[in-house]
Amino acid sequence: MKSLEKTLELYKQYRRKLLAYKYLNFITSWDLQTEAPEGSVVNTSRQLDVFAEESYRLNMDDKYIKCVETLYNNRDKIDEVTAHEVEVTYKDLQKLKNIPKDEFLKYQQLLNLAYPAYVKAKQSGDFNQFAPILKQIVEFNKNLCKWQETETLKGYNVLLDTYEPQYTTKEYDEFFDVLRTKLVPFVKKVVARKLQYNDSFVGKTFEVDKQRQYCEYIRDVMCFDKSRGLMKESEHPFTSGFGTDDIRITVHYYPELVESAIFSAVHETGHALYEQQQDPSLNDTMCCGGASLGLHESQSRFYENNIARSYSFWQVHFPRLKELFPEQLEGVTVDDFYKHVNRAECSFVRVEADELTYPLHIMLRYEMERKFIDGDLEVEDFSKYWNEAFTRYFGITPPDDRVGVLQDVHWACGNIGYFPTYALGSAIAAQLYHKMNEEFDVEESIRSGNTSKVNEWLKQHIHKYGSSKYPKEILRLAVGEDFNPQYYVDYLINKYKVIYGIED
Amino acid sequence: MKSLEKTLELYKQYRRKLLAYKYLNFITSWDLQTEAPEGSVVNTSRQLDVFAEESYRLNMDDKYIKCVETLYNNRDKIDEVTAHEVEVTYKDLQKLKNIPKDEFLKYQQLLNLAYPAYVKAKQSGDFNQFAPILKQIVEFNKNLCKWQETETLKGYNVLLDTYEPQYTTKEYDEFFDVLRTKLVPFVKKVVARKLQYNDSFVGKTFEVDKQRQYCEYIRDVMCFDKSRGLMKESEHPFTSGFGTDDIRITVHYYPELVESAIFSAVHETGHALYEQQQDPSLNDTMCCGGASLGLHESQSRFYENNIARSYSFWQVHFPRLKELFPEQLEGVTVDDFYKHVNRAECSFVRVEADELTYPLHIMLRYEMERKFIDGDLEVEDFSKYWNEAFTRYFGITPPDDRVGVLQDVHWACGNIGYFPTYALGSAIAAQLYHKMNEEFDVEESIRSGNTSKVNEWLKQHIHKYGSSKYPKEILRLAVGEDFNPQYYVDYLINKYKVIYGIED
Repeated sequence: MKSLEKTLELYKQYRRKLLAYKYLNFITSWDLQTEAPEGSVVNTSRQLDVFAEESYRLNMDDKYIKCVETLYNNRDKIDEVTAHEVEVTYKDLQKLKNIPKDEFLKYQQLLNLAYPAYVKAKQSGDFNQFAPILKQIVEFNKNLCKWQETETLKGYNVLLDTYEPQYTTKEYDEFFDVLRTKLVPFVKKVVARKLQYNDSFVGKTFEVDKQRQYCEYIRDVMCFDKSRGLMKESEHPFTSGFGTDDIRITVHYYPELVESAIFSAVHETGHALYEQQQDPSLNDTMCCGGASLGLHESQSRFYENNIARSYSFWQVHFPRLKELFPEQLEGVTVDDFYKHVNRAECSFVRVEADELTYPLHIMLRYEMERKFIDGDLEVEDFSKYWNEAFTRYFGITPPDDRVGVLQDVHWACGNIGYFPTYALGSAIAAQLYHKMNEEFDVEESIRSGNTSKVNEWLKQHIHKYGSSKYPKEILRLAVGEDFNPQYYVDYLINKYKVIYGIED
Repeated sequence: MKSLEKTLELYKQYRRKLLAYKYLNFITSWDLQTEAPEGSVVNTSRQLDVFAEESYRLNMDDKYIKCVETLYNNRDKIDEVTAHEVEVTYKDLQKLKNIPKDEFLKYQQLLNLAYPAYVKAKQSGDFNQFAPILKQIVEFNKNLCKWQETETLKGYNVLLDTYEPQYTTKEYDEFFDVLRTKLVPFVKKVVARKLQYNDSFVGKTFEVDKQRQYCEYIRDVMCFDKSRGLMKESEHPFTSGFGTDDIRITVHYYPELVESAIFSAVHETGHALYEQQQDPSLNDTMCCGGASLGLHESQSRFYENNIARSYSFWQVHFPRLKELFPEQLEGVTVDDFYKHVNRAECSFVRVEADELTYPLHIMLRYEMERKFIDGDLEVEDFSKYWNEAFTRYFGITPPDDRVGVLQDVHWACGNIGYFPTYALGSAIAAQLYHKMNEEFDVEESIRSGNTSKVNEWLKQHIHKYGSSKYPKEILRLAVGEDFNPQYYVDYLINKYKVIYGIED
């Protein structure tokens, strides 16, 4: 027992350093993504290489690995949070160890080449330019599934588990089956109709300064703690942070698209609240930060869709928007604006999709990933497969690869198995929304003017745990059952039936 | 010889890591000073502690120290830049080694207490509150002079050399003697007169957005390379950077003080040009960055005073200011504005002082530092001494310590011997200005619209060397003689005689 304490002590010394590297990664990426001058990147990368080497050395240190192994084998004898942390770390280290070192290094070099090649191919709109490199990326990931397979995880599941622990094709197949059978036919009905409302404001110029004011107002409505975070601008909105006390979000303002910045601000503030509302005791551990990509996305989508695309939300907050933009919104009612931000249309590009059609974009990617990792689809056939499947689900055919198979950067970065977490996030959000409504009237609570009651519920049921438990366990504690995609489909169909006046 | 090569190789491995820590310090301080949320500071400090320990360990590594010693003893056999770098590093390490470790640690703790104590005392305006801690700081610095003394450097010179290598009381005494005998009587003549001009714009509101536009315009006039740097806002303006390709400046905008931001922007851009115009080959060395505080300040002051307070500068750039602020500057001529930014007045606070009276503020601090390090002035008597000396030089007496002995933070941070470099900077600037004018008409060159000719001269004679030589050597290469304060006094007197119409 004495010796276990010593091991724990040593482990904590390593962890202290690894946490510092985590901070370093956060602050340097934040700088590179929000303001570092273009010409500084080469020299900065060379400094960051030094720290990457040091951090790798630390992770691969025999003493450290031995420490983790000892604690893993004795995790019933240590506190719950550390036990979970050690379990996750142990599994990650095992996974890393199982990749042949030379293959790992070759792959890193491949990825360095892949991104510029992807950008070039996308610019020219020609998938064939990118196919040879993508083929190698897919090949590596197929091998990865073999190297990292365990008794319970094989094939594509190995990749899925990397991004969302314990969610496998079993869960995802059920999920996407429900979408395919129930949502696809409903979407076809919806998009056949045209929503009638006063859209005179669309395309007008909304001054960026005032958009910023409104986003700051919304951030305050959501009770974002400004003393422990900030909001800035960047090309693509994102959330980044360290611990519970330094959570930063970005927004991008388009003068002609006022709703873009608003929903970005809500979405990113949703991510930020998850981080800010964790238990502060997690700050010294590796369990600070969301439990998984899917659970994180469930929080941002919850605020973005379930809260900020609700009628009550705009009843309360449209007046302020009108105050800031009296000319642009002249004659526009809250009903018009509500319809505008909830219109559904089939479109080619995932990141521009609306709440209703969004999951179908993911479904298509999931199907493809399953097939190509299982060897049932070759990279050469990606473009053809994509366009056929897209036409089947959406009834429209991408005019070129730019808005088809080349639209997302994920595969070029080696992120295969990542996409499904996006749709999972929205579905978990719907399940949480259902549960929350059993306990109090959510729309009524937000008519009070801010989201504090919602925040408190999510804090107590999701946020406080950070990543000190697996996401499945956190969900079970919050809603009292396992993940069930039915809530999501019901929520979408009920909502859009009302908006589009569909009877059935 | 083979073995020396190996030593050099090993040294470069250490240097690569130390450079990475230098980058880390830059980027984290930049973040803390410009945007980090208030509530993040505690947790961030704990991460930075980890890196501070690592960096200290690296600097104190026996192998590294041995490396430096070997190279120092063989510096005639290695390239010039590395030889200089090793010499400086060797001396710094010797200095550090000569401080008893427990005294060093106690002093760090003292400094941690000193800053908040200083702030509190300044708020209350009562020097006696701060005196006991300052006494301990002074005591440590007196000891430091003993611990670090060499055959050639003793007493206060030890401290002076820390901030400006090779400048001792010999140079500074001569410098301040000239100021005391020639400048003080002249200043009294000047401030007795009142400058007549249309000052109707003083106190009017100048919109911050437009001030920003003007500062960006001035930054472009000075040919700041935006691809390798940026301009941001912060409470106190400063310049920060890493290498030659990431140089960042900040400005603070006061709506009622348009000239404040303008001269800050020029001053900081002056610092930035020094860094941007170094030879890029220095990026991999420890010789990237200005050669000393004084030489750095000479560059910022050169642009701020010699260039941006010249009549030609405003002839060319006042129209743009008027364009941005037509109402505020209605009826104001370039002559009015030129006089306004060159008016001289006796005032209590150094950082608000004008070009003419500024060096007298430094002279007072230099005299005090000399005395109290030599044991001729006790901390208990600081306030009294300050007020008497101030009255002697300026003819006015500080109403309280807030605008007297408590106005600067430097001593509270343990920076004794630092102040003289400020005045040295302005004096070197005047000497460079004199030399430059021998080669081409500086005012004529800036009437062309930008400062490119001036930049090029400074690049070739000062900037390109970075800190690969001692500042005295760089100055000698640039002007062909040693530092001579006469140019400075002549420059000031000639300039202010014209502005104030003083015949002699």
